Amino acid sequence: MPSTTRPILLTMGDACGIGPEIIVRAFERGAAADCVVVGDAAVMRRATALSAEPLPLVVLDTLACAPSCPPRCVPVWQPAGLPDGLAQLPWGRVDARAGAAAAACVEAAVRAVQSSEASAIVTAPLHKEALAAAGVPYPGHTEMLQALAAAPGRAPAPVRMMLANDELRVVLVTIHLSLRAAIEAVTFDAVLGTLRIAHAAAAPGRARPRIAVAGLNPHAGEGGLFGDEERLTISPAIAAAVAEGIDASGPFAPDTVFMRARRGEFDLVVAMTHDHGLIPVKYLGVEHGVNVTLGLPFVRTSPDHGTAFDIAGRGSADPSSLLAAIEWARRAVVTTA
Amino acid sequence: MPSTTRPILLTMGDACGIGPEIIVRAFERGAAADCVVVGDAAVMRRATALSAEPLPLVVLDTLACAPSCPPRCVPVWQPAGLPDGLAQLPWGRVDARAGAAAAACVEAAVRAVQSSEASAIVTAPLHKEALAAAGVPYPGHTEMLQALAAAPGRAPAPVRMMLANDELRVVLVTIHLSLRAAIEAVTFDAVLGTLRIAHAAAAPGRARPRIAVAGLNPHAGEGGLFGDEERLTISPAIAAAVAEGIDASGPFAPDTVFMRARRGEFDLVVAMTHDHGLIPVKYLGVEHGVNVTLGLPFVRTSPDHGTAFDIAGRGSADPSSLLAAIEWARRAVVTTA
Repeated sequence: MPSTTRPILLTMGDACGIGPEIIVRAFERGAAADCVVVGDAAVMRRATALSAEPLPLVVLDTLACAPSCPPRCVPVWQPAGLPDGLAQLPWGRVDARAGAAAAACVEAAVRAVQSSEASAIVTAPLHKEALAAAGVPYPGHTEMLQALAAAPGRAPAPVRMMLANDELRVVLVTIHLSLRAAIEAVTFDAVLGTLRIAHAAAAPGRARPRIAVAGLNPHAGEGGLFGDEERLTISPAIAAAVAEGIDASGPFAPDTVFMRARRGEFDLVVAMTHDHGLIPVKYLGVEHGVNVTLGLPFVRTSPDHGTAFDIAGRGSADPSSLLAAIEWARRAVVTTA
Repeated sequence: MPSTTRPILLTMGDACGIGPEIIVRAFERGAAADCVVVGDAAVMRRATALSAEPLPLVVLDTLACAPSCPPRCVPVWQPAGLPDGLAQLPWGRVDARAGAAAAACVEAAVRAVQSSEASAIVTAPLHKEALAAAGVPYPGHTEMLQALAAAPGRAPAPVRMMLANDELRVVLVTIHLSLRAAIEAVTFDAVLGTLRIAHAAAAPGRARPRIAVAGLNPHAGEGGLFGDEERLTISPAIAAAVAEGIDASGPFAPDTVFMRARRGEFDLVVAMTHDHGLIPVKYLGVEHGVNVTLGLPFVRTSPDHGTAFDIAGRGSADPSSLLAAIEWARRAVVTTA
């Protein structure tokens, strides 16, 4: 690693899922030379052992040692206090210890970027049930990062999930809610807040990205015939964003706006619901999708898939999405530096 | 046209939209040799005149004359009682007369297939506002066809909209409703009814299509965490369908099930909402999408776009989706004959 470069941190995710092995794959492919794993050394050793020719592990005492790490190895920085016996947990099972360890690694990574020891965080998948079993008070990565990033005693800043691939960038107004609850959560403030965050962060290096806003209802409400959220909520929020200098337009019919963005008419699409946004991003295949958390005071990306418990430990997991997440983080760090 | 073949009827749609000109294009390309236009002769003549070398129009007294129509012409069967002056209406404007004429052509076409004078109906786009302005008591094609197909005094049989392209077939449980209303309309009966119709008609020639059912909520409810419609409504309907011998599975997470179907894991996907289903069908481009009405006692398809008032009359409209709709109808007639 160049000695002037602060590392990108790869948190290992759930020890029983595919996180550790896809991280190892990234190093094997030479795609993570500027990265350090935040994880349990024994778990990562178990993951390297899945390969025919295991890469050596280098356990770093501190992140400052990262530049002295030799090439063709897997540098691991192990946070203090991880549970014992993680590398003995069976693959593909929910375990509170794996949940606790995944959370501890994320927390350590956040502290490291906050203290400028690292440049960005790429998180391998954790398992929400394991997290809950460990008593972690956040349902997933995003909420945890949001809370950890907040100044002590201050409310967390709003963040938004962006899913991106080579063809399409989608920023979501709502994510992990029932569809009923999502409709209620599509408020003026939520839409305007999403537009502000998307404008500021969704297209690094682009001063004024062209943002298309998808409607909530079929045909974007067909003039009020199929719902009035467009008229009452979404259109006013777009108007307010435009008044702030944001290049936002819409609301457009959800069924064609993503196709229009894919063809280059817009730089990104703001979608009201999880599945309106993620169906098109994932339609052509999840391999190259990247999940980017916008609104945090640091760069955070992750692969666009879960722990894949059904195939964990076989060494067959595809690292493509993780590679794309690392590459996105690398570019975002450079562009926003 | 072979004398033994009953024609496929192409209804002209709204006289002020792109319907007439895309129909003419289909004849020009030799892709409609087994078709007859149900429309106003003057409107169709105006559409042929948009071409550099207009095809001759042949006005048929009855559909029985269709086989004697020479090649390289546009055969038109004009229903009695169409409004006067249709060919003088400006392109791209809502007009009650165009709405009334579009409806009359659809009605005539239905009567012709019911009396076995024609084999199938392909409808060019009409304009919902023009239909309403004409006092037609149906919001669109589908509802009109459903009512016309019903036996006198009987309730219309349930129909479902399918959108299909070369890669994906999607059958919708709900269509033109606000998202709020759509959630309420996702009932056990609606889902089971959709599965029955899809099983019977969505894959002509395939006895037992593999049907994937998309959930309503993110992650198909994540075990009840993000909504309980999957547990309370959708899963029981799938179980009931399976008990009837239908190859249905799910509910699957909406954001990945379409990608899985595209890769060949399923023959078609049943989607709960308009946009869950149409976003992936349209994502790769609307040109080749076909709209198929399932559940009618005859074959009916249509292109996957509207009247395109903004470009009507220029002769630049792309007939690809109409061509795909004609081809689908042709195949469905053969397979179900």
